[in-house]
Amino acid sequence: MPVDDTAPIEVTAFEWVPDFAKGQVRDLRVRWALEEAGRSYRTRLIGNPRPPGYEREQPWNQVPVYKDGALELFECGAIALHIAETSEALLPRDPIRRARAITWLFAALNSIDGPVMAYVSASLFNADKDWSPGASEHFAQFLAARLARLGEWLGDKEWLEAEFTVGDLMMVATIRGEDILQYAPANLVDYVRRGESRPAFQRALAAQLADFIAEPA
Amino acid sequence: MPVDDTAPIEVTAFEWVPDFAKGQVRDLRVRWALEEAGRSYRTRLIGNPRPPGYEREQPWNQVPVYKDGALELFECGAIALHIAETSEALLPRDPIRRARAITWLFAALNSIDGPVMAYVSASLFNADKDWSPGASEHFAQFLAARLARLGEWLGDKEWLEAEFTVGDLMMVATIRGEDILQYAPANLVDYVRRGESRPAFQRALAAQLADFIAEPA
Ligand SMILES: N[C@@H](CCC(=O)N[C@@H](CS)C(=O)NCC(=O)O)C(=O)O
Ligand SMILES: N[C@@H](CCC(=O)N[C@@H](CS)C(=O)NCC(=O)O)C(=O)O
Repeated sequence: MPVDDTAPIEVTAFEWVPDFAKGQVRDLRVRWALEEAGRSYRTRLIGNPRPPGYEREQPWNQVPVYKDGALELFECGAIALHIAETSEALLPRDPIRRARAITWLFAALNSIDGPVMAYVSASLFNADKDWSPGASEHFAQFLAARLARLGEWLGDKEWLEAEFTVGDLMMVATIRGEDILQYAPANLVDYVRRGESRPAFQRALAAQLADFIAEPA
Repeated sequence: MPVDDTAPIEVTAFEWVPDFAKGQVRDLRVRWALEEAGRSYRTRLIGNPRPPGYEREQPWNQVPVYKDGALELFECGAIALHIAETSEALLPRDPIRRARAITWLFAALNSIDGPVMAYVSASLFNADKDWSPGASEHFAQFLAARLARLGEWLGDKEWLEAEFTVGDLMMVATIRGEDILQYAPANLVDYVRRGESRPAFQRALAAQLADFIAEPA
């Protein structure tokens, strides 16, 4: 679905980010879910300072925020789940398979994203601190152990369960950064490539990149 | 609901943990959700080594795992949501209020638990490392900033939205450790105490504590 300025669904995104973050900002996950579900959306681009009152939409002043009429959500996990609930492309109807998909959605955002962000924080965001090398090494090892277990779970399966779900969407989006994938076993790298090669992902990525302006104001 | 050995719902928990972890292990969150929903459950106590094949139940060999007939889940967030879906005590029926509650469930497990675990990892689990003081100070500041914003959101409200939901349950459980609450504004400390004073929480806590054996084998 193309981005459509008249669509009722609105997603916030940044008008500009540094190069390392392009293609990684979390509105991508919401765009991807919407593309898989075949829903069109419009974007509201924000920058610094944030629009007045934005912290009542997102308590940490972050993106994404999702609006659809009177519904206003934050947290990419909650938004992705909300979208998935309206589409069998992301969530099977069978109650057990549905619950398993949701388990992986939480696994991505709690068991994996926590260690990912701790590592990125120590190694990238605080590279200039004297504690950065030691902490980075520790969090890299912790992350590698998590990803090794995840790779064992996946084995030679295509997706984490019997079919692609919102759980795979979130997992792929969480670990696809090259700085993270360097710690992943080969089958998990292939899994990420499989996710990224989905047409819906490609459209979402292109749409995020197309929205960035050349330079911040 | 008392723990009941004949109940169809089974939750894994540890037979023993060090004193600092007693009352903090994550099966508590599942027990609490079950208590709020008025469902009885039995526990399967595990230790070291884990039961054979346990990593096919929980890829990181952790607790809790939840079983109910053919349904087998991990991730306390997914389990709490599954329980909440069957009980208006945890999830309002109105679609917008329901989606808001789920937003807070993800906020607890992604926006707050990530920073909590990074701080605990740097300060407690790696206290002997030379990078621990610097990293702990950084992650403490990051956590304090998150909690300050959360406190601003809460203001003088009783719960994060209009009524107690699974989002409050998870938020209270995530930040109630004394080492975390030292960084929280006063209204958030009161909020945690309100959550902990719920009879369902008290039953869940007593049940977790009662399950620990005196000493590991
Ligand atoms: N837990 C939130 C995290 C959102 C988040 O980390 N957003 C980042 C972009 S990827 C952001 O807005 N960063 C800017 C900031 O923190 O000021 C979610 O999953 O939606
Ligand atoms: N993301 C998981 C985390 C579970 C978890 O951290 N469990 C801890 C107890 S609170 C555990 O089993 N730790 C022992 C270990 O990691 O070996 C969830 O939310 O259920």
